[in-house]
Amino acid sequence: MNNPEQKRSHSAATDAVSEKPRRAVSQGLKGRGVKGRDTTGRSGAGGRKGRRKARENTVVQRVPFINRQIATFDILNEEGLCLIEENANTLLKEIGMEFTDDPEILALFKGAGADVQGNRVRFEPGHPRQIVQATAPAEYVQYARNPDNNVVIGGNNTVLCPSFGPPFIHNLDEGRRYGTLEDFHNLVKIHQMIPWLHHSGGIVCEPVDIPVNKRHLDMLLGHFRYSDRGCFGALIGAERAQDSVAMAKILFGDDFVDRNCVLYSVANTNAPLVLDTAMSGALKTYARNNQAVACTPWTLAGAMSPCTVAGTLAQVLAEAMAVCALTQLVRPGAPCLMGSFATAISMQSGAPTFGNPEGAKMVLAAGQLARRLGVPFHTVGALSASKLPDAQAQQEATYGLIMSVLAGANFINHATGWLEGGLVTGFEKTVIDADLCVKPAILLPLLE
Amino acid sequence: MNNPEQKRSHSAATDAVSEKPRRAVSQGLKGRGVKGRDTTGRSGAGGRKGRRKARENTVVQRVPFINRQIATFDILNEEGLCLIEENANTLLKEIGMEFTDDPEILALFKGAGADVQGNRVRFEPGHPRQIVQATAPAEYVQYARNPDNNVVIGGNNTVLCPSFGPPFIHNLDEGRRYGTLEDFHNLVKIHQMIPWLHHSGGIVCEPVDIPVNKRHLDMLLGHFRYSDRGCFGALIGAERAQDSVAMAKILFGDDFVDRNCVLYSVANTNAPLVLDTAMSGALKTYARNNQAVACTPWTLAGAMSPCTVAGTLAQVLAEAMAVCALTQLVRPGAPCLMGSFATAISMQSGAPTFGNPEGAKMVLAAGQLARRLGVPFHTVGALSASKLPDAQAQQEATYGLIMSVLAGANFINHATGWLEGGLVTGFEKTVIDADLCVKPAILLPLLE
Repeated sequence: MNNPEQKRSHSAATDAVSEKPRRAVSQGLKGRGVKGRDTTGRSGAGGRKGRRKARENTVVQRVPFINRQIATFDILNEEGLCLIEENANTLLKEIGMEFTDDPEILALFKGAGADVQGNRVRFEPGHPRQIVQATAPAEYVQYARNPDNNVVIGGNNTVLCPSFGPPFIHNLDEGRRYGTLEDFHNLVKIHQMIPWLHHSGGIVCEPVDIPVNKRHLDMLLGHFRYSDRGCFGALIGAERAQDSVAMAKILFGDDFVDRNCVLYSVANTNAPLVLDTAMSGALKTYARNNQAVACTPWTLAGAMSPCTVAGTLAQVLAEAMAVCALTQLVRPGAPCLMGSFATAISMQSGAPTFGNPEGAKMVLAAGQLARRLGVPFHTVGALSASKLPDAQAQQEATYGLIMSVLAGANFINHATGWLEGGLVTGFEKTVIDADLCVKPAILLPLLE
Repeated sequence: MNNPEQKRSHSAATDAVSEKPRRAVSQGLKGRGVKGRDTTGRSGAGGRKGRRKARENTVVQRVPFINRQIATFDILNEEGLCLIEENANTLLKEIGMEFTDDPEILALFKGAGADVQGNRVRFEPGHPRQIVQATAPAEYVQYARNPDNNVVIGGNNTVLCPSFGPPFIHNLDEGRRYGTLEDFHNLVKIHQMIPWLHHSGGIVCEPVDIPVNKRHLDMLLGHFRYSDRGCFGALIGAERAQDSVAMAKILFGDDFVDRNCVLYSVANTNAPLVLDTAMSGALKTYARNNQAVACTPWTLAGAMSPCTVAGTLAQVLAEAMAVCALTQLVRPGAPCLMGSFATAISMQSGAPTFGNPEGAKMVLAAGQLARRLGVPFHTVGALSASKLPDAQAQQEATYGLIMSVLAGANFINHATGWLEGGLVTGFEKTVIDADLCVKPAILLPLLE
């Protein structure tokens, strides 16, 4: 509970966490962000040789995260927002959320006054929001191995993170094949070299040549060894999450980890309205250790949520509030984010589609809902259903990333590399998307 | 001056034009927009054959133009807007705008009270704005051969228009080569089949197999013959503009053309702060005949305008106000638009770049400035420097088109097909961009 780096702006903030002005958190880090020097100009040696030498020594100026100075793009008015919030309350009161096979979670919710029947937890309107707003920080710092790469998550800040989860990789020489630990390491190194990414991510590809039971250890070691930015812990299962925390403690020290966020994680719901033990086990572990959990309904509108944008938003908010509330019951003050990974399926084939205007409406509105809830907003970026780093891939990726940026997302997963609906991390796609990630870095600051 | 279909919302509106509520103009057309029926469902015949038959008979539902129901994305606050407006006033007072070799234009400005010395016209602060706001319509209708395709230009409406101007075409079979009249006709037919375009455009490619002195006649005939949507008249020179008006009068009738807009045109400035006779001659002809002129500073920041976004915006506004004012001196009440085609050059090579965040800031702010001026806003869409319809092309095109849409543009030129910095209209790019044009059609209406 001793957590001086985390900020809450809720009126109901308890005394358990010291209250610094939010601005101080951002500014304390911002000054350190601009490093290196731009040496692309002509060198003293002159000529082609001199220019090549100058290029070799170029250090690109970068900031550790983007600080937004222009407005978010809000598409819902007060009436629309209230309607969706009311519908989310109705969902949680009448249907409730199922937390499968975890007596501890059910006991926590029961203790907090929720209505628990079997695995199903029902809430009075406003109850989960109240739990979240009482203790969840509006903004927090994720510490990195290199302090220059610490990121402030929340407020007006945006953190871009590479592709997460694909079992396959794609490159122009070999085409598509299963990922290996060597690919994983190469991707981590490439990401570290991209100035416009701010986070090393997690499963940049699945290293399927490593046994599943120890794969998470090799991946985290890869991040710690080949990147000095922040990264994810393992997402699936309490045991692997605990291993991740243990490894982080070796790197950062026990006390530091207990007091500060050094690992990022996502708890995806089994939409509609279910959280299973694979996710809730890791969630409890991270929250208990004061590490960040992005509570993310994973919805394909028309499959796991209503076809309509408004209906999906109500479900997304309901699930996110219930899961965020769980983090605060496990450890009040632990950082949690409202996540949203919502897109539309083809109503003819059932295939997920990306970079579509329905998804844009959902992410823009979800950003507004998260700001009203008062926690940072997590979402996704440069997604594509394309199998290749082609025109389709960039049409979808560009549209999706821009909308997440305009939605005011604080953490954007999959900002580079994602192909084929998340089955593939593409090496060329990663590099092309890196160009895309420059745009928000320049768009979001004010006019000079 | 008898111009009942054109609307002005300025308080200084004269009595010469009857004043209907603006809403009526849009709504009078909107109902007619949704046509055809969606027959993609299963037909009675069933099976693959039945589905194929159903597809063959599919008539895609479309609207004649997009009616925006969500907000524009405004990046400048009142202070920023006032500063740019003041700087534009200073430019027009101290440096002025040059209108080359046209005594009639200089006499018009002198008669209106401007300071004319040689070809240079200087304005007191606020004077051009006053001229524009006194008589220029805030919204007007461009009539098409098919009344279902009439478009309302201005207000909350957005009209998407294909590639304009390239001397070359590109397709996957032949690569890049000079355009022909056959290509021109094929492009007009393809555009007519794309439900998400709203306008037939102008020089969809240059038919270089046709002599220059009669090329503009063949092009306009191509639009009239193979499309039933609105189109451009010839842009360069008074004579060709007059030919365009004469052809339109054959199609629509003399009286109708004098009372209504049936041709769209663009007058590009020779930035900085010059309008030459090629442009001003056509401008005068169209304005005199009550046809629309988009007054468009064509600026590459760093080459024809200051490097900074704010500096370029001041110049864009200055030029657009002066040229819009000219249209109103030629014929009060003739439709004019504030245009902006502003992007950044590479400061290393001098090459123009597209789909960049500097361009995004310029188009978003220019939209705000146009709304304060009180005339419709014209800009550009799916631009790219790429030579092929590839990932780069879609990254740039998608970013550019979205930003123009979010800027509240009323008319977006080059929404499809543009490649290689405007040297090439690509057939495949046209089809890929058509997919892109679906996104604003779904994003801009409200949530259901």
